[in-house]
Amino acid sequence: MKNALLILAAIFLAPLAQAQELKEIKLNAPDKNRGTAVMTALANRASVRAMDSRPLSHQDLSDLLWAAYGVNRPDGRRTAPTAKNDQDIDLYVALPAGAYLYDAPNNLLKPVVSGDIRPLLAAGQEFVKSAPVVLLIVSDYSRFRMNDPDLSRLWGAMDGGIVSQNINIFCAAVGLATVPRAYMDQPKLKEILHLSATQLPILNNPVGYPLVK
Amino acid sequence: MKNALLILAAIFLAPLAQAQELKEIKLNAPDKNRGTAVMTALANRASVRAMDSRPLSHQDLSDLLWAAYGVNRPDGRRTAPTAKNDQDIDLYVALPAGAYLYDAPNNLLKPVVSGDIRPLLAAGQEFVKSAPVVLLIVSDYSRFRMNDPDLSRLWGAMDGGIVSQNINIFCAAVGLATVPRAYMDQPKLKEILHLSATQLPILNNPVGYPLVK
Repeated sequence: MKNALLILAAIFLAPLAQAQELKEIKLNAPDKNRGTAVMTALANRASVRAMDSRPLSHQDLSDLLWAAYGVNRPDGRRTAPTAKNDQDIDLYVALPAGAYLYDAPNNLLKPVVSGDIRPLLAAGQEFVKSAPVVLLIVSDYSRFRMNDPDLSRLWGAMDGGIVSQNINIFCAAVGLATVPRAYMDQPKLKEILHLSATQLPILNNPVGYPLVK
Repeated sequence: MKNALLILAAIFLAPLAQAQELKEIKLNAPDKNRGTAVMTALANRASVRAMDSRPLSHQDLSDLLWAAYGVNRPDGRRTAPTAKNDQDIDLYVALPAGAYLYDAPNNLLKPVVSGDIRPLLAAGQEFVKSAPVVLLIVSDYSRFRMNDPDLSRLWGAMDGGIVSQNINIFCAAVGLATVPRAYMDQPKLKEILHLSATQLPILNNPVGYPLVK
């Protein structure tokens, strides 16, 4: 009986224990001198799906996130504008061990859920499942100070596109492979990431080192 | 009587004659080595409304448009990705003398309508009326090869945000002032630019030299 209880406890507490295993990841300060000239990056900008599964270096991951949506001014403003600076965007980071939320003001990754959510982001596209990191851009349109859900969703989509292009240009500038994707399993992602009814996944960007041809 | 007819003819034909005065503007080849490093541009990225009314140099205008949505590969692909590469975006260019359409494959501006449409883009914000150029990003969601108008509008908004961020980053990299804006007189712009029912103005970016403080 005691053994049975222990087994039951192990079964029901396992997901919780696993979630607790994920720890905050402190990010490096961004290297603000990095990358090619902007016009060169735009010349090289392309959607690249052939990417290596080896993890990004810690500096590459840190710079990637700061480029995407980092704080670039003392008042908390970001590398990406948002409509009326309402900062509706959240950036989730899928690593093989689990999913994190990018905490830009503190320059770290906060654990959200352990386990590999890349298959939910892949929606059948194999290369996404083995990308070392997949960035998920989510708009919470309840943060807009207006009461027009339809227009708010459009604004959220614009803001999401803006963040995605930061990722695309950064990757082109430093030789990383990426592609913006709208396909994903939205209902299951909303559930596993505990998104609210007003949080809308917009785009995701798998990122990795390009495969050597 | 003859004079009266001439006056009437002058009144009714004037807008047409004026429209015909606008000529194609050939753009310079883009300078693909230009601008700060990408991370430096992202560090300097900010929405700047204080801008000078003096015209952009021809090279600045040429580079700005190519950065925004230029052709960067022999197969016609662009500096900005679009959903499924359906290239739903059109870029209109408001100069004081009239409005043009950016013809990226031929690297030129095609006249659309003569006269100053910047007041329609300004929607009450004075600085927009005197910006030397205002870029208007329009999505034609009928170009998406799917039959879902609601999703198509969201994709168009994402694609528009992506093009706007190219503009924002280019400006930060070369010391130009810009800000992405969703406000504008959409119905009148659709009418004067002869936009179709499926063409949706997404964002506009006034661009100018920053005012010296």
